[in-house]
Amino acid sequence: MRKIINDPVYGFITIDHPLILSIIAHPYYQRLRRIHQMAFAHLVYPGAVHSRLHHSLGAYHLMSCAIGELRNKGTIITPDEELGAKIAILLHDIGHGPYSHALENELIPHVDHEAISLLIMQTMNEQYKGQLQTAIDIFTNDYHKHFLHQLVSGQLDVDRMDYLSRDSFFTGVAEGVISYDRILKMLVVTDDELMIEEKGIYSIEKFLVARRLMYWQVYLHKAVMGAEMLLVKIIQRAKELLRKGKIADGATKALNFFLAAHESAVDHDELIRKHLDLFCSLDDYDVMCTIKNWSSHPDKILSTLSRCLVDRNLFKVRFQGEPFDAKLIHEKRCDIMSRLDLNEEEAGYFVFTGEAVNTTYDPGDERINILFKDGSVKDVSEIDNALIHQQLAGPVKKYYICYYR
Amino acid sequence: MRKIINDPVYGFITIDHPLILSIIAHPYYQRLRRIHQMAFAHLVYPGAVHSRLHHSLGAYHLMSCAIGELRNKGTIITPDEELGAKIAILLHDIGHGPYSHALENELIPHVDHEAISLLIMQTMNEQYKGQLQTAIDIFTNDYHKHFLHQLVSGQLDVDRMDYLSRDSFFTGVAEGVISYDRILKMLVVTDDELMIEEKGIYSIEKFLVARRLMYWQVYLHKAVMGAEMLLVKIIQRAKELLRKGKIADGATKALNFFLAAHESAVDHDELIRKHLDLFCSLDDYDVMCTIKNWSSHPDKILSTLSRCLVDRNLFKVRFQGEPFDAKLIHEKRCDIMSRLDLNEEEAGYFVFTGEAVNTTYDPGDERINILFKDGSVKDVSEIDNALIHQQLAGPVKKYYICYYR
Amino acid sequence: MRKIINDPVYGFITIDHPLILSIIAHPYYQRLRRIHQMAFAHLVYPGAVHSRLHHSLGAYHLMSCAIGELRNKGTIITPDEELGAKIAILLHDIGHGPYSHALENELIPHVDHEAISLLIMQTMNEQYKGQLQTAIDIFTNDYHKHFLHQLVSGQLDVDRMDYLSRDSFFTGVAEGVISYDRILKMLVVTDDELMIEEKGIYSIEKFLVARRLMYWQVYLHKAVMGAEMLLVKIIQRAKELLRKGKIADGATKALNFFLAAHESAVDHDELIRKHLDLFCSLDDYDVMCTIKNWSSHPDKILSTLSRCLVDRNLFKVRFQGEPFDAKLIHEKRCDIMSRLDLNEEEAGYFVFTGEAVNTTYDPGDERINILFKDGSVKDVSEIDNALIHQQLAGPVKKYYICYYR
Amino acid sequence: MRKIINDPVYGFITIDHPLILSIIAHPYYQRLRRIHQMAFAHLVYPGAVHSRLHHSLGAYHLMSCAIGELRNKGTIITPDEELGAKIAILLHDIGHGPYSHALENELIPHVDHEAISLLIMQTMNEQYKGQLQTAIDIFTNDYHKHFLHQLVSGQLDVDRMDYLSRDSFFTGVAEGVISYDRILKMLVVTDDELMIEEKGIYSIEKFLVARRLMYWQVYLHKAVMGAEMLLVKIIQRAKELLRKGKIADGATKALNFFLAAHESAVDHDELIRKHLDLFCSLDDYDVMCTIKNWSSHPDKILSTLSRCLVDRNLFKVRFQGEPFDAKLIHEKRCDIMSRLDLNEEEAGYFVFTGEAVNTTYDPGDERINILFKDGSVKDVSEIDNALIHQQLAGPVKKYYICYYR
Repeated sequence: MRKIINDPVYGFITIDHPLILSIIAHPYYQRLRRIHQMAFAHLVYPGAVHSRLHHSLGAYHLMSCAIGELRNKGTIITPDEELGAKIAILLHDIGHGPYSHALENELIPHVDHEAISLLIMQTMNEQYKGQLQTAIDIFTNDYHKHFLHQLVSGQLDVDRMDYLSRDSFFTGVAEGVISYDRILKMLVVTDDELMIEEKGIYSIEKFLVARRLMYWQVYLHKAVMGAEMLLVKIIQRAKELLRKGKIADGATKALNFFLAAHESAVDHDELIRKHLDLFCSLDDYDVMCTIKNWSSHPDKILSTLSRCLVDRNLFKVRFQGEPFDAKLIHEKRCDIMSRLDLNEEEAGYFVFTGEAVNTTYDPGDERINILFKDGSVKDVSEIDNALIHQQLAGPVKKYYICYYR
Repeated sequence: MRKIINDPVYGFITIDHPLILSIIAHPYYQRLRRIHQMAFAHLVYPGAVHSRLHHSLGAYHLMSCAIGELRNKGTIITPDEELGAKIAILLHDIGHGPYSHALENELIPHVDHEAISLLIMQTMNEQYKGQLQTAIDIFTNDYHKHFLHQLVSGQLDVDRMDYLSRDSFFTGVAEGVISYDRILKMLVVTDDELMIEEKGIYSIEKFLVARRLMYWQVYLHKAVMGAEMLLVKIIQRAKELLRKGKIADGATKALNFFLAAHESAVDHDELIRKHLDLFCSLDDYDVMCTIKNWSSHPDKILSTLSRCLVDRNLFKVRFQGEPFDAKLIHEKRCDIMSRLDLNEEEAGYFVFTGEAVNTTYDPGDERINILFKDGSVKDVSEIDNALIHQQLAGPVKKYYICYYR
Repeated sequence: MRKIINDPVYGFITIDHPLILSIIAHPYYQRLRRIHQMAFAHLVYPGAVHSRLHHSLGAYHLMSCAIGELRNKGTIITPDEELGAKIAILLHDIGHGPYSHALENELIPHVDHEAISLLIMQTMNEQYKGQLQTAIDIFTNDYHKHFLHQLVSGQLDVDRMDYLSRDSFFTGVAEGVISYDRILKMLVVTDDELMIEEKGIYSIEKFLVARRLMYWQVYLHKAVMGAEMLLVKIIQRAKELLRKGKIADGATKALNFFLAAHESAVDHDELIRKHLDLFCSLDDYDVMCTIKNWSSHPDKILSTLSRCLVDRNLFKVRFQGEPFDAKLIHEKRCDIMSRLDLNEEEAGYFVFTGEAVNTTYDPGDERINILFKDGSVKDVSEIDNALIHQQLAGPVKKYYICYYR
Repeated sequence: MRKIINDPVYGFITIDHPLILSIIAHPYYQRLRRIHQMAFAHLVYPGAVHSRLHHSLGAYHLMSCAIGELRNKGTIITPDEELGAKIAILLHDIGHGPYSHALENELIPHVDHEAISLLIMQTMNEQYKGQLQTAIDIFTNDYHKHFLHQLVSGQLDVDRMDYLSRDSFFTGVAEGVISYDRILKMLVVTDDELMIEEKGIYSIEKFLVARRLMYWQVYLHKAVMGAEMLLVKIIQRAKELLRKGKIADGATKALNFFLAAHESAVDHDELIRKHLDLFCSLDDYDVMCTIKNWSSHPDKILSTLSRCLVDRNLFKVRFQGEPFDAKLIHEKRCDIMSRLDLNEEEAGYFVFTGEAVNTTYDPGDERINILFKDGSVKDVSEIDNALIHQQLAGPVKKYYICYYR
């Protein structure tokens, strides 16, 4: 029993295990079809409408390739481990809520998506009578072969390889293309650590530069941020209205539940655990449909912000190296207060500042080790004539101001 | 004032006219972001999530190229005509409702999307003080230069060139790729008719074969049809409930209005005209969000069908050359009646038959004329050693049966 | 021991058997680097400079894929058979002489390249102590599993799949692209016959249409033929001079030997067999370098023709459906006789006619069988609504006239 | 009069000026078809068989695009300047001899290819009655609009953009891909200097990293160097034999002339000038055909080296950060002396060392200036959070040893 799925990025994705086919058919997994991989990036890059489901299928495909390559080089990976690693990557993002990163910490505060992914995997493990245990162990890095976890989650995991490849493909930002097939061929496991063969150095440099470019040029694109900040402010306003008892009706049932529940919740983990099925019914459609409803809501702030997002009348965003001057912020707020007849607190929904941070390569996090022919191992930032130098190892912080036009 | 849009299919799309930029920013146009170009094809081809907006931008790009090529060959096209042709193609699909073709004739019966496109263009023309008049004349084929209409709507228009290119790109069905750039270079206008130069014959053959393939392999894919038939049955059931007074609550306001209104309407055109703004707020999000709500609706038929679509538990579809045997249909209905405890009429929502039709090349519709070096003109199906022969000029009809698993 | 070769068409080609590595390193095989896959097509399509070596490596890669797919579907292929099939395809073209098809029958008359391929394979088999025997049996269709021969040589062999893919890639003729990966996935063996699964029908149609297009648009392109006819006439003139004792000096030693030897030879097979090593030193460099020398040869005809080819001053070619009028030919000959001061026989080098023939699909040769789900088998030209119809099954003949400008 | 050329890299290249068509048809230009763009890189990357002619056509295409973009931004470029810039780039490499860089300084010592390009352009200028004067002035940087020269020759010229794009395309080294279309769209001229708009920073970083990768991974690939060093040693040996009166017969006439003449020449420029027509008949075919002849030459050194190159039995190359130990070199030489029965001087042909140098970005050479929105200008290595840092601005030197296996 074999299924072949057309994928414009890799050609064909082959699935040949009944458990995997069953997991893919599970409603929890199918929900990922209704969550955009890149939230509102499609408002700038119209092709970037691909789903979390498509990304996780792609990462699954790369995992299959990686396992094949490592086995060719003599690394032992049992069929059970193969299945575990494939399921772990298939489900690594299953805990994402609507608009994933863009709403993380707003909609479901205090619980990150990886914790929810684990919760869902555990629930599914019960349904599948323990067949997901190896996957869970690999996901949580409790499996004794550490390198399998590194393939799922590390500086050079198949998750990153797929999202960079896929996001650059669907946005049409050719500069973000990485040579995933060559990187896969350069993978090697030594002492239970995932490494890159010496002759793969330049492919790794290219990979890190592509990621750097995708962050600053695409993920943190000013108009993309302008859209995602609108979304955040809409949700914040709705929660504020709920808190004040001015009910923000128009939300779908599931969305309304979580907006309300979180305000009063003590143990947010517990809340999700109890209402996991409801959480697993939430997707981008709930949020966008609700925002369409809210665009005629009696609350002027909620309706104005919602209408802006629906009609793509986005916040303006400006970046600079230093924090923005309080005077400038004040001026902009005064302007909006008079234009929209708001008080100062309310103007905060329309003019605000923040920080965007990205690190090109963080050797302190998960190192990328290069294995030289003589058996020595060096971090990619420490080789001779390294492109990736010390200075890039620290985070780059940019300050932004965001305001209604 | 120039805007560049990344497009994974063509690289970059350039927009350099303020009126076009303004039209693109119009909420009516932005709505197309929320309508899938290929309805539920993404349930089979996960990459096929691109929007009607993206398609119309692509067709606009090809129109720009076509105009440039024709001018290079000496065809006179004035700046006003260029603008008109570009706007006509940009707006040619603006009248599509949610899930476009899949729901056409169900949601808004008796009014096709082209009529609604025209209505919307006329309304926008008033807003823009007549600046869209040339576009409208080209769209309705009332403009004296017929070939401009042919570029917008004909056997070889930029609409088809874009949707074939784009749909094959996003599905990853490489066989659907056409050589749009070569076809564009082979375009020529003679006696106000769009033609193809002799040396473009093989590219045209390839184009027709690609279209044939896309129809049978993608657009009429059994699982894609299984999904779109589910959608149709869901809407039919909701209308039935409304008709019987068993209100199908859960629908968004705009969707509910049109479901209800059409049942009682006499002049459907008039209905749309009066409620154009409401129509222009309808999109895939209304429909999908409503179906998610309906998946727990008290009506068993509505909730079962809705749940199937949400969880991708699609109708099974089988094709054959002759009509299906009444006995087979009856057996399947009996089976479903006992499994779901339904009466015979209700079972019709779960087991039914129909016909799918496609014509590879219809010379009676809009011919593709080949201009030979000696000045003679022949239809592509009449040249020597034609691949596209008489037999393919007729419609191919296939019968299908569709049923709940 | 594994070697990875970058291929712009397929990404990477992996070679993992020492015998294959050794064969590739053999001077006989390395010679294929110096034979253009597409002779002089690069005079029209400047990218078409790829070599026979590259093509055979590509076909080898597709063979690896095909074997993998068939095994996945349960067809038994032993390691020895795998090795045999791979070697057979790697060496299938090793008997090509300089400029392959363009000079076939001119340089080495009466012996086709497949016979020479077999001779070389037999010689190498002795060197490799019989390790090539299975490959030879598969190549000559003497192996009991017929389908392995079909993979090497049939209507749908990996040879054709590679040359269509590769030639369209390097020429940039996008319309020639076939979906080799999908066709490979649709391959199936039933009763020792290679077939295509039902859902691969449209890919096969696309493949046949792509081939048809490549023939008429690329391989038989008028300027390409104009170049290759120049080459043929140059060689014919040189042989004529040799025959008449007016020695055509300037040729490299190996080229000179074969030009001279064939004139007097009785058993051409025997000639090649005796001088196989010398034959295996002949390549495009001998011919082109010789032609460069001949461009200042005292024989006016030889030097004029040679200079034309070197400077890309090609013969003009015209095609038509009927034979050319003797009067036209005579007029053109008279014109050239006076312009270049030639007699009528000599003018035959500068003005001549011929026929080009191509068959879109020949069911009489090697059929393409479609395996339907119900187990029935039909030829691709006999299925319902076939694109590939009876009329295309016959050869299409075009008449050409070729003349010096 | 318009000609369209298929190019797999850019799709189509359009030529629409009679002077350009005439220059392309010139035998001097056609010679570039017979010079490999990447010398012997195809021995490692079998697809890398593209010609200098193809590269210069590609650079011409990018020049057309660049001129179009700059004009759109208001930079004045007259039709004469456009023609000049296009001819300058078309002919920029016309002075390359056989195997271009690989043999530069060996075959035609003391005269670089750019000086010969200029000589040829001047000669053609006479033939074309001065129509190439603007092209020559732009090429030699004597034209008053400096930026036109920068487009032809600078850190960011269309020459580099094409060769990186083309070389990565034909080798299949996907990591070398640059986003030439985006870079072109970011070009801007300020104060007669070519610059890049601020939002093009990441594309430039990607461009520099791609170039760095192509140098170390492709151009300086060990096996590629092993082949090109063989070529150099063969030519050196032939010159040695000529010098000693042991005539290295077997060379083509033109090749023999230059090998002999340079040994005795005083003014090498003068030599080329006098024999320009002969120089313009030299190409890769002369060299390779000669080497094939030499592979059975009586001089053991010449024949051994020649046979190695013909059969792809390449020198082994090793790199390291420090100079190689004299003892190691001596050992290897002793080994070869006994294996091939050579004296120490002769062993120098089979074992030798050298240095390979490459600079990722040299701001001292031709800077890449970034134009910020506020009008300020910074070098790409001096912007905030620059990827291209000081350390990379210096040349990286690697030592190599090269020896017969």
